[in-house]
Amino acid sequence: MSGVPVINLHGVLLVTIQDELLDYSVTELQQQITEQVVEHQARGVLIDISVLDVVDSFLAKTLHDIAAATSLLAAKTVVVGMRPAVAITLVELGLMLPGLRTALSVEAGLALLPHDDPARTELR
Amino acid sequence: MSGVPVINLHGVLLVTIQDELLDYSVTELQQQITEQVVEHQARGVLIDISVLDVVDSFLAKTLHDIAAATSLLAAKTVVVGMRPAVAITLVELGLMLPGLRTALSVEAGLALLPHDDPARTELR
Repeated sequence: MSGVPVINLHGVLLVTIQDELLDYSVTELQQQITEQVVEHQARGVLIDISVLDVVDSFLAKTLHDIAAATSLLAAKTVVVGMRPAVAITLVELGLMLPGLRTALSVEAGLALLPHDDPARTELR
Repeated sequence: MSGVPVINLHGVLLVTIQDELLDYSVTELQQQITEQVVEHQARGVLIDISVLDVVDSFLAKTLHDIAAATSLLAAKTVVVGMRPAVAITLVELGLMLPGLRTALSVEAGLALLPHDDPARTELR
């Protein structure tokens, strides 16, 4: 396990990264998220990276890959809470992460997810 | 014949892949599906790949091509039941399959198909 808690909230997986991650934890997180998307039939994944001062190229690529894999599994991924300094560094590294959706807060991220199931709309 | 059963259910073709397919079976499946879309005037095709542990690049490309061909024949294709590990592998191979719709279950896949004919709605 990656040590990162993944919470299922009415079909949305809330992933809160709580510390810098080692590379193998990042890989395990990818596996954990994709498995739980299928298990919970999730329609969306919110990954909160607000605690991170630094996002290295490996984590950036994995976030992008998680988004692509969940998209194949019919779930949207939104990365929330990126710090301004992280955004500047990613651009300097040339990691523009096309296809990765971002939002400034968990609430704004939730608003980007579909809510096709009327029974689930209370979350929004 | 590809050996894959294609069942017509009120205008939706249900294609259940039951085993790893050889490349020529994949090609035959593509032909079989497009022919049956026209024969049954199908509005949608659901391809269930939940038994597959591995989706190689040829099958991935063919699934994409089947979706494109049926779309030209006015039918939507949804690939259902992709396993998490398959999604990760496809992303690692760079096969993001743009334009291919996916759903986690046959029921969720059916919900993505149009139901223009009122007489057919009982299926949903």
